[in-house]
Amino acid sequence: MIRLYNALVMPMDDGSCRCFSGEVWTDADKISYVGPPHGPMPDFEREIDLRGSLVIPGFKDAHTHSAMTFLRSYADDLPLLRWLNEKVFPLEDKLNPQRVYAFTQLAVLEYLSSGITASFDMYFHREAYAQANIDLGFRSVMCGALSEGDSVDIAADDYAKFNSLHPLISYFPGMHAEYTAGDTLGRELSELVHELRAPFWAHISETESETLAGVERRGMTPTEYFDSLGLFDYGGGGYHCVWLSDHDMEIFARRGLTAVTCPASNAKLASGIAPLCELSRRGIKLAVGTDGPASNNALDMFRELYLACVLQKLRERDAAACPAEGVLYAACSGGARAMGLADCDCLAPGKQADIAVIDMDRPNMRPVHSPAKNLVYSGSKENVRLTMVAGHILYENGAFLSGDAERIYAEAEKHTKELIEDGT
Amino acid sequence: MIRLYNALVMPMDDGSCRCFSGEVWTDADKISYVGPPHGPMPDFEREIDLRGSLVIPGFKDAHTHSAMTFLRSYADDLPLLRWLNEKVFPLEDKLNPQRVYAFTQLAVLEYLSSGITASFDMYFHREAYAQANIDLGFRSVMCGALSEGDSVDIAADDYAKFNSLHPLISYFPGMHAEYTAGDTLGRELSELVHELRAPFWAHISETESETLAGVERRGMTPTEYFDSLGLFDYGGGGYHCVWLSDHDMEIFARRGLTAVTCPASNAKLASGIAPLCELSRRGIKLAVGTDGPASNNALDMFRELYLACVLQKLRERDAAACPAEGVLYAACSGGARAMGLADCDCLAPGKQADIAVIDMDRPNMRPVHSPAKNLVYSGSKENVRLTMVAGHILYENGAFLSGDAERIYAEAEKHTKELIEDGT
Repeated sequence: MIRLYNALVMPMDDGSCRCFSGEVWTDADKISYVGPPHGPMPDFEREIDLRGSLVIPGFKDAHTHSAMTFLRSYADDLPLLRWLNEKVFPLEDKLNPQRVYAFTQLAVLEYLSSGITASFDMYFHREAYAQANIDLGFRSVMCGALSEGDSVDIAADDYAKFNSLHPLISYFPGMHAEYTAGDTLGRELSELVHELRAPFWAHISETESETLAGVERRGMTPTEYFDSLGLFDYGGGGYHCVWLSDHDMEIFARRGLTAVTCPASNAKLASGIAPLCELSRRGIKLAVGTDGPASNNALDMFRELYLACVLQKLRERDAAACPAEGVLYAACSGGARAMGLADCDCLAPGKQADIAVIDMDRPNMRPVHSPAKNLVYSGSKENVRLTMVAGHILYENGAFLSGDAERIYAEAEKHTKELIEDGT
Repeated sequence: MIRLYNALVMPMDDGSCRCFSGEVWTDADKISYVGPPHGPMPDFEREIDLRGSLVIPGFKDAHTHSAMTFLRSYADDLPLLRWLNEKVFPLEDKLNPQRVYAFTQLAVLEYLSSGITASFDMYFHREAYAQANIDLGFRSVMCGALSEGDSVDIAADDYAKFNSLHPLISYFPGMHAEYTAGDTLGRELSELVHELRAPFWAHISETESETLAGVERRGMTPTEYFDSLGLFDYGGGGYHCVWLSDHDMEIFARRGLTAVTCPASNAKLASGIAPLCELSRRGIKLAVGTDGPASNNALDMFRELYLACVLQKLRERDAAACPAEGVLYAACSGGARAMGLADCDCLAPGKQADIAVIDMDRPNMRPVHSPAKNLVYSGSKENVRLTMVAGHILYENGAFLSGDAERIYAEAEKHTKELIEDGT
């Protein structure tokens, strides 16, 4: 049992970003109390005086490709297609489970250092990926990444395997994208989604050209295509969603889908600015992701929050557009619900103890007119004091507590060197 | 004498961001050696093993209003004019020297935590401002902020006073902006600039409406107006420069002026995206600023670097636009030269020891394919290991060494409360 006291608590249990002065207690993997100080107190194994630090439900990175850490800064400032075809794809072909394990562990450290308590990841070598997370005590929801030619049995097997593997791991069916899908795969995956009553996820309308090519190819946008196959009959959503049409947004609203925005990646790859204000006006659910470290290049939720808000202000030419609170809520609570982590969406008794503590005792957080606006508009990773997943403190005051960071760096470097310099 | 060894050194002494493994020595306020390890070694008062950390010339925040820390997160997500007229101006009227001192010291801590070693500041209560910097050992170039109705004698007096006050403080003549200038002030200030042979600075074309109104008012853009008065005869430049015309850019190029870009502030206030690629194509000098914490809201050069690059990619619809190295160079070396700090532009013997050390031993910095791209695209304030100004280590491993941070936070909070809650 852990007691976090003298805290500013933002529980997000009522859809808002309101705060109060109080404390949060945990018991094993769950939150046991949230409120003002009160007695009698149980016998805590640790009591941490937060001296006014802010306690929030951990950030959920709702779209990423964790293992792509090895490509960070490898091929920036190139045109998108050259980057993909000349740099990314040839190296990905040489990945193996050991490498994915090492690169994923590096990513997990980075999530923890940014107050992120769960990821929604799409990649391959999935057993190794899952084990890398489990070994560090990190929570991850895996998304299938089928492309035409893959057997739908992969998704059926993965669904069964990863949803019973470990409490920290779960799995949703998914496809890479419309432009790598074919009708056979689409039909078979739709049958599976119906059989499992499972939500469906894919990259959707990340770039304008991808969207236009889809319309050219099938007479339908990617969203319309997936919907026409019945893939969204049990919900789910899309990653990126930069170039949604009016009709796409109608589908998102009607089906209760979530749009996961990845503002940094979309900016860096010149893909565009997702219409978050318009999505919000239509009541479409939002979550926030970093995308992979090859395209972002950081796995830093502070960057995403800031960008999500200010890019909307630019897009709408209105400094009042996209207030901070909505994006902050989407990044913590919205992400949890999109990822099927209903137990990780807020700070309340019985919920999973997935918590980030934000240090307000730093110059960038003073004065505190609004904790939410401070967090979004002036916060940074320097402010992450503690990250807890399922009741375990995995990161505190700059130190990683569930893995040997030096060893993880060395492993990732070794595998990167073999892949890139030695070409093996 | 201090020895920084086992370092990755990015000296920026040849216009590039090349790196080598080596060390940097300081002697009093200056750099005494930059290169590979070599003997015999002098008697150092401290030797710091950097274990591969990156040593760069400190960031120069080339446009800010430091004392506006008290307005951080006070009035975000409002339309620009409501924000200024209802929130900012009424409170600024109640500032006094004690308050500016307290709020400036808070800002200086924030600069140090971001690896910033000098600021180019425009604000009032300038004696208190200068003293706040001096007392913390921080370097600042002050810019006059005259508006019509002010006597030009203020600028003449300030020039004499602040350029002889202290080695860390200097002063350039400046005007707030074209839209607060009148012809009398413009003429008189131009006479002063000629008498002093001094560069001239002002906010220039931050918003489209300001620029259009200037054209309406005088038949000239702000840049044309200032140039027509001869204010740029000894160089200088403009802050923001979002809405420069072709002819404005010709003036900037011909006069050797520097455009200081403030991408975060321009995005958050929906002002637009400055044409950095076009400015670079024309050979116009660039520097990077945060603008004040009321509009940004952070004083974080990592945010500015990332935004400067990725906003250009969006603006140009080209992922290859605005490579990281040019912006990094502008933020360190370009800023120094714009601010008249020719001794702070690179790491070389005889230069001022204004240095930032970037910790590469964190997950967001691994692997290291390119130190410059890592710094710009995945770096954050968590990576600032040490900030040194004029040979003094002012910030190290999260601790502020030249001022009592708790006292500075408390003072800033006290004055903020009096101003805002008590309305005194």
